[in-house]
Amino acid sequence: MDPNRIDDPFSFPTILINEQICRQNIHQMAEKARTKQLIFRPHFKTHQSVEVGGWFREEGIDAITVSSVKMADFFSKAGWKDITIAFPVNMREIEEISRHAGKIKLNVLFDVPEQAEALALKLGSPAGYFIKIDVGYHRAGVLPDDFKTIDAIISSAGSELLHFRGFLTHAGQTYTAKSKDEIIKIHGNASEILYRLKQKYIQKYPGIIASTGDTPSCSLAEDFTGIDEIRPGNFVFYDLMQLKLGSCGFSQIAAAVICPVVSVYPDRNEALIFGGAVHLSKESLTNPDGSKNYGLIVPFVDGYWQSPKGNDYLVSLSQEHGIFRTSSQWARSLKPGDQVAVIPVHSCLAANLFRNADC
Amino acid sequence: MDPNRIDDPFSFPTILINEQICRQNIHQMAEKARTKQLIFRPHFKTHQSVEVGGWFREEGIDAITVSSVKMADFFSKAGWKDITIAFPVNMREIEEISRHAGKIKLNVLFDVPEQAEALALKLGSPAGYFIKIDVGYHRAGVLPDDFKTIDAIISSAGSELLHFRGFLTHAGQTYTAKSKDEIIKIHGNASEILYRLKQKYIQKYPGIIASTGDTPSCSLAEDFTGIDEIRPGNFVFYDLMQLKLGSCGFSQIAAAVICPVVSVYPDRNEALIFGGAVHLSKESLTNPDGSKNYGLIVPFVDGYWQSPKGNDYLVSLSQEHGIFRTSSQWARSLKPGDQVAVIPVHSCLAANLFRNADC
Repeated sequence: MDPNRIDDPFSFPTILINEQICRQNIHQMAEKARTKQLIFRPHFKTHQSVEVGGWFREEGIDAITVSSVKMADFFSKAGWKDITIAFPVNMREIEEISRHAGKIKLNVLFDVPEQAEALALKLGSPAGYFIKIDVGYHRAGVLPDDFKTIDAIISSAGSELLHFRGFLTHAGQTYTAKSKDEIIKIHGNASEILYRLKQKYIQKYPGIIASTGDTPSCSLAEDFTGIDEIRPGNFVFYDLMQLKLGSCGFSQIAAAVICPVVSVYPDRNEALIFGGAVHLSKESLTNPDGSKNYGLIVPFVDGYWQSPKGNDYLVSLSQEHGIFRTSSQWARSLKPGDQVAVIPVHSCLAANLFRNADC
Repeated sequence: MDPNRIDDPFSFPTILINEQICRQNIHQMAEKARTKQLIFRPHFKTHQSVEVGGWFREEGIDAITVSSVKMADFFSKAGWKDITIAFPVNMREIEEISRHAGKIKLNVLFDVPEQAEALALKLGSPAGYFIKIDVGYHRAGVLPDDFKTIDAIISSAGSELLHFRGFLTHAGQTYTAKSKDEIIKIHGNASEILYRLKQKYIQKYPGIIASTGDTPSCSLAEDFTGIDEIRPGNFVFYDLMQLKLGSCGFSQIAAAVICPVVSVYPDRNEALIFGGAVHLSKESLTNPDGSKNYGLIVPFVDGYWQSPKGNDYLVSLSQEHGIFRTSSQWARSLKPGDQVAVIPVHSCLAANLFRNADC
């Protein structure tokens, strides 16, 4: 970043983290895990920050989840020594994975036997592995009743250095659930599937666990029967998507993007901010009328964002342009040069865009 | 980037530019501008690359367009001395803009009088300005018949250092046009609007020009009557969106993201690539059946991507996961560890994500 610009970071789109709220979110989830006697292995892909990582450490956390080998490398250099890469093994990164296994306590994911075979062949140090189970999201994973594939993975991982740690899932279909009840139901179903698999294999593989992870389930569920470990990530900041799902209240949102108001168009009750797809990502929510919502606009006063004043949201985003509807009286009083805060639809993607902020 | 990884850049998602195609795209657009006697001021927000910029320089280009002050700074440091920032003046960056005006031949955009007033007050060196006109895209700009605002901007820009350069538009509604005819019609209408405005003001402000810029219009139109300058950007790489619009053929696409195939799921005719929203952006096209297309999957052989083998496209994207439908026989023969090329929906956003590639 140009040193000339540091004195006014908010002259251009800037992500702002509320440390107090973020620490509260971390504390609450850590406390929930303690109460329910669950291993808490938070996903660090949301914040990708050494500093936020430190706030987890202060809560006693020492085991984490990441979603790429590169991210494992980043956090291992920052002192994290117990890492699960929750993305199926990319066979083109076997050497890199093997190198990390020599340095830290590493767990990887398999969902096809080829991955296990390739890693077993090259591994020079001990590593753990989970079998990824598809509990209905249909993104990655083995179907729960596909014992042929599960057994083939275990058999392909036939190295003394590769240790079977258990079954892992991400019930990502909670992100499109229509109600809290539906989220609880998805969570219950996922828990039952993992528990049944664990019971089937635990005699032969003592110590295996069941690991689940999505933020909606971990935020809303109270019953974690059958589950040993949770790996939520998004809860650290939450966002507009989680607010709409009911996973959090507005006061739990810990990240916003501060943007300058550039132009105001009273004729169409819209305004332009400097804040586009390169700052917020093109993740959107769909309004009841089918139109898109790319972020909620709220006041930014004295360094803090405020509660919404009305239904002021981004109706369109291009590379650097964001157009929002000025529905509230507050929004209609905005002038060029003012600042607003945007509550992002998806904080993981917005935070990622600011990691190497040069936009 | 970790030096250990450089020997196999394609072990993880990597953007690949075909220099020959890219240079051809640059040459063709430069040649078209020469033939039509248009000023060619290409938009550099698509590539944001000093190297690609050099290919424009070899075509004789010395004036460029960017979309942020930061980008103006980046390219001025790379030796570009005639830059239009095609984004309305952000009043919180007046000092930065003023600093640049002292170093290069700078043009800025106004679409509300406040911007002109603020810059006129602080400017210490000459700068040019365009008035941004909204020709129907309704993103930014003054409505063409709003002479009150146009006159207020000119009057607010009452500094001897601020020079009125003309009227500028981006007819971005061509991106959602349904046919080539519709694109040509939008372009014709935009040209006529700018020409009429120019004619109305040129006696008082001799030398003002009409500047337009979207890639679909600049690629497809042959009649540029009334227009003096074009500023397309996306044409340098083109992408799936432009292919669907008919702005380019497949052989003109100059950028693809090379991704490893991680897992294959024959039961559902889908496969997982390491390649997600942090590599491709969440920009999507809508298929006729209402489903989403996040990128086209094609073979990648001996360092080159090939023509599509069928309707193999990304049906969903999360942070690092991309799921594609294996519709062709080729796609169904893919194995974990293979590589594919993804033709991105929107090359500007994909290229931006790789600028500081740490994902």
